[in-house]
Amino acid sequence: MTLEDDLKATVRAIQDYPKPGIVFRDITTLLGNAWAFRRAVDELVQPWAGSKIDKVAGMEARGFILGGAVAHQVSAGFVPIRKKGKLPHTTVRIAYSLEYGLDEMEMHADAIKPGERVILIDDLIATGGTAEGAVKLLRQIGADVVAACFIIDLPELGGAAKLRAMDVPVRTLMTFDGH
Amino acid sequence: MTLEDDLKATVRAIQDYPKPGIVFRDITTLLGNAWAFRRAVDELVQPWAGSKIDKVAGMEARGFILGGAVAHQVSAGFVPIRKKGKLPHTTVRIAYSLEYGLDEMEMHADAIKPGERVILIDDLIATGGTAEGAVKLLRQIGADVVAACFIIDLPELGGAAKLRAMDVPVRTLMTFDGH
Repeated sequence: MTLEDDLKATVRAIQDYPKPGIVFRDITTLLGNAWAFRRAVDELVQPWAGSKIDKVAGMEARGFILGGAVAHQVSAGFVPIRKKGKLPHTTVRIAYSLEYGLDEMEMHADAIKPGERVILIDDLIATGGTAEGAVKLLRQIGADVVAACFIIDLPELGGAAKLRAMDVPVRTLMTFDGH
Repeated sequence: MTLEDDLKATVRAIQDYPKPGIVFRDITTLLGNAWAFRRAVDELVQPWAGSKIDKVAGMEARGFILGGAVAHQVSAGFVPIRKKGKLPHTTVRIAYSLEYGLDEMEMHADAIKPGERVILIDDLIATGGTAEGAVKLLRQIGADVVAACFIIDLPELGGAAKLRAMDVPVRTLMTFDGH
């Protein structure tokens, strides 16, 4: 068994969720397993263990859990990227594509200073619509996006390739076929 | 300056948010400050540093950020408590009071085994409606709620006292008057 196999074994497959034909990858079982959670967080940012990271940006809501832990691990500040209307101070905002239509995400305009080194965190990358929006938002306020890290990659959906085409190094811990 | 003063200085006050007369305590500035975030997480669970904690339960959404970091700090698993309809597997659910009316929160039924030692985390305790609901939900599935930890206490609103009356040790890092 490789580490990937061991970590994959802690992810629960839920058939036909949220709709028939889809296998949902439920990471709450990984998060709830103390060994797997710690190991996944540490592995996710292992390539940047020796370099200075100023901020970890996490995407609402599962990216908050992993992002908080990663920020603690690398001794960085944490920056939430939220659905619109949830942050109390002045924000910058961007539209992004969902499966059906558009939505908007935002972050505080003063959350990151120009030139700060930022790692973006979410649980899963699929088509990459939200991650692409987050990278654009981070760059709009001058962040240096050092990497984007995800527990799960669904490579057939092309999200990781989309980020790499934007010159963002991508790190993932496991892949699953299809949805 | 005490540690409480130093940490308080990193919390931003937003006047008249979300409505006139309310001063909103914005912890994103604490989270974004690497020193304050790390120090707050470590201080929050310092009393339980030497004892075994099986799970850290965090309340959606800001409790996810702190809870993820705390779980990493104490080498525990993380359990999300979410607004209804967002968890993919079998859940237990409870109604709780909001300022206007009721809402429901839920967690996966198999997220915690009977007797497991759990710390509950959120960013702020005010009237304590959501925290009280979370404690009841955790106890319903047999968790031993070792403590409830919050960065900010608004003691005039009585939430911390409400939890202590339920025999839950409460730890907070700073207090503010009124709302």
